[in-house]
Amino acid sequence: MTISQLLNDYKNGTTTPRDVMANIRAQIAEHAENPIFIHALSEAELEPYLQRLEGVSPDALPLYGIPFAIKDNIDLAGIPTTAACPAFSYIPEASAFVVAQLIEAGAIPVGKTNLDQFATGLVGTRSPYGACRNSIDPAYISGGSSSGSAISVALEMAAFSLGTDTAGSGRVPAAFNNLVGVKPSKGVLSTSGVVPACRSLDCVSIFALNTEDAKAVFDIACAFDAADPYSRKMPKTGGTAEKTMRFAVPLPSQLKFFGDSEAEALFNAAVARFESMGYTAVETDFSPMLDAANLLYSGPWVAERYIATKQIMDETPEQVLDVTRSIIEQGRDKSAEAYFNAEYRLKAYKRHSEQMLEGTDFALTPTTGTIYTIEAVNADPVQLNTNLGYYTNFMNLLDFAAYAVPAGFRPNGLPFGVTLFGDAFEDRRLMDVGEAFVAEAPRG
Amino acid sequence: MTISQLLNDYKNGTTTPRDVMANIRAQIAEHAENPIFIHALSEAELEPYLQRLEGVSPDALPLYGIPFAIKDNIDLAGIPTTAACPAFSYIPEASAFVVAQLIEAGAIPVGKTNLDQFATGLVGTRSPYGACRNSIDPAYISGGSSSGSAISVALEMAAFSLGTDTAGSGRVPAAFNNLVGVKPSKGVLSTSGVVPACRSLDCVSIFALNTEDAKAVFDIACAFDAADPYSRKMPKTGGTAEKTMRFAVPLPSQLKFFGDSEAEALFNAAVARFESMGYTAVETDFSPMLDAANLLYSGPWVAERYIATKQIMDETPEQVLDVTRSIIEQGRDKSAEAYFNAEYRLKAYKRHSEQMLEGTDFALTPTTGTIYTIEAVNADPVQLNTNLGYYTNFMNLLDFAAYAVPAGFRPNGLPFGVTLFGDAFEDRRLMDVGEAFVAEAPRG
Repeated sequence: MTISQLLNDYKNGTTTPRDVMANIRAQIAEHAENPIFIHALSEAELEPYLQRLEGVSPDALPLYGIPFAIKDNIDLAGIPTTAACPAFSYIPEASAFVVAQLIEAGAIPVGKTNLDQFATGLVGTRSPYGACRNSIDPAYISGGSSSGSAISVALEMAAFSLGTDTAGSGRVPAAFNNLVGVKPSKGVLSTSGVVPACRSLDCVSIFALNTEDAKAVFDIACAFDAADPYSRKMPKTGGTAEKTMRFAVPLPSQLKFFGDSEAEALFNAAVARFESMGYTAVETDFSPMLDAANLLYSGPWVAERYIATKQIMDETPEQVLDVTRSIIEQGRDKSAEAYFNAEYRLKAYKRHSEQMLEGTDFALTPTTGTIYTIEAVNADPVQLNTNLGYYTNFMNLLDFAAYAVPAGFRPNGLPFGVTLFGDAFEDRRLMDVGEAFVAEAPRG
Repeated sequence: MTISQLLNDYKNGTTTPRDVMANIRAQIAEHAENPIFIHALSEAELEPYLQRLEGVSPDALPLYGIPFAIKDNIDLAGIPTTAACPAFSYIPEASAFVVAQLIEAGAIPVGKTNLDQFATGLVGTRSPYGACRNSIDPAYISGGSSSGSAISVALEMAAFSLGTDTAGSGRVPAAFNNLVGVKPSKGVLSTSGVVPACRSLDCVSIFALNTEDAKAVFDIACAFDAADPYSRKMPKTGGTAEKTMRFAVPLPSQLKFFGDSEAEALFNAAVARFESMGYTAVETDFSPMLDAANLLYSGPWVAERYIATKQIMDETPEQVLDVTRSIIEQGRDKSAEAYFNAEYRLKAYKRHSEQMLEGTDFALTPTTGTIYTIEAVNADPVQLNTNLGYYTNFMNLLDFAAYAVPAGFRPNGLPFGVTLFGDAFEDRRLMDVGEAFVAEAPRG
């Protein structure tokens, strides 16, 4: 279910938005055992979106009748936003800025998707609505925190979806469900109407089946929002940098696969694929990035998670999952002194990262070093979650744009993914490179 | 003693750097009652700088033989840096990056100038080396914290000088001593080798007699420093914005002169002078700026002052002046939660400021609303200092570039100054406008 396919079908009259939404509702019902949606829109709730398209030509709107899912920490007017914490729930009057842009372009919201509570986690199991199951093998985790948004696209319940990505939540579930995941430059997608995780770092992210769709959504979603103080205008110039045809990969000693030799082989194959495309891999010291990653949860930014959940954490903390509460708790005691010391270190890491990446077109890492079963994560929820963030946690702290793409399959059928990253505002160029990489994939 | 005059004299052979430095040493001795220098270079200490120029043509170096003074929180190799706290003193092996650039261009350091201890203050009286006296009327304050750097230029002991400006320290003393003061965009002058006040906000500033000199120094000092994580490259593009010939001034209710009707009249005359030059004043709501200003000392940034002085504050706090200690003390107890809440407010103030200033070429305020005698400040050191920061404290928090210029004299001969400010990286354009404004000054 790609955007271009759907638009074609609408233009040819072989289907209608109403039929597509009926099929999706059937598909959702069929997967009821997997807690993908916290709230799937009822027929009545869908009706206004369908009626709005009646009498409108499919040529008139770039996302005419395109179904999309929305992570349940992003507001959709009139539908509860829970952030996967029922006690936190509220019903927003208006849709988030980004959601409104997409609806304006003709897209139809399918529902609000499950997530790791308060977008705190990379696993997809930390939800009172149940652990999301991987779209390919239900014994495995979906990845998180944007778990339901990823699975809904993988299982054809939506053509694309919105997630959020503070620490990796828009990339890890993409890798685990064979999707592309756009982690935009901070601020180019508005966060108005999004429940903050770390407000200074949060990004709205996009899941899609392929780059063409991701670009179509990005081009509409990427709009300056004067009401969001963190919104940044995408510079008009860009893409003018000289191409080096070189890309940075971590030093061999910095690559971690947590014993997963299949993932290691797939990463090596991805590097080889880029080399077959004419690029040269440059082994690069990634320690500034890896050191920055360690700051995200050990450092003062966790105070932002506390600010975002302060009322519930102070008044009814028992309403928060144990693992989530134990993380957010740490935000109470951080000092401004610790904040500034972390900022100083971070600024140095950023400078060193720039120096390390100079002369390359992009950097490449595994999206995650491995994947886990739901059972394994339940047995060791904190450490395994930490492992999954090894390549992702630094991205927003260091103000990079990132694009996660599929990079082959393991013998058991589970997918593997890699992430391309580069300077802020290089989003479109990264998507171009990722698209070319996927196009070169060996055909099974 | 302007740069162009000196260079002319050197080229004509009517004087030599050695003669100039001898005259300056005599001038310094004559003003020994005013504690301008914490350390004036001895003949022996000057000798290497003079010898270095021997056999070099005055045409070969843009600042050949130009004497400059250095605020004593900026390192000069081999000379103690005290930050006006003798117990803090250390002897740096290398000069600050900016100092090294200037020396490389031929400039000669005269000495290290007095300051409000740890650059905390806008008065020039908060120093164990004594209160600096205004260059025009010694009963009045010099302004601070870059007190000695300003007076040394006003009294012809240096052709230009370096200060620092976190809250207004490079602008207030310019106004009080009839100088121009460049408060550059954050990061375009390196702060490597500068004792931090609030490291995330600090700027090195420039005092000069006129804009031509300020530009000459700025062009050399403005160089990217990869070793300073806060260093920012001046973008190559710029100055391409359409000129509106409109400038923003605060709403009448937001103008504060603290009962000083002479200052009020001089500000009105400055506005009228811009209007006579073809500009239109636009009364603008400055509340986002004024609200941001309140955050600087009440907010978490004071934690940075504590970090910068932690050892002395923890181990020998009695070595810090009472007034300074009482301010820095507050930095101990700020939380990361308070930091992020302040950052969120600040981001909103920045956005609102942008909206307020849209459609204007620059904003104009008094540099200070009034001036005080040393006696008055000694009697009420905190409140009067706060009054002096009313128009200056927001500048770095909101990432503006600013240029302070003379704007006439009071009946008693004391000067008045105004400040032009605008977006980061607009430094050169602001200097152009300020230069034209000064050129239009009514002749005595």
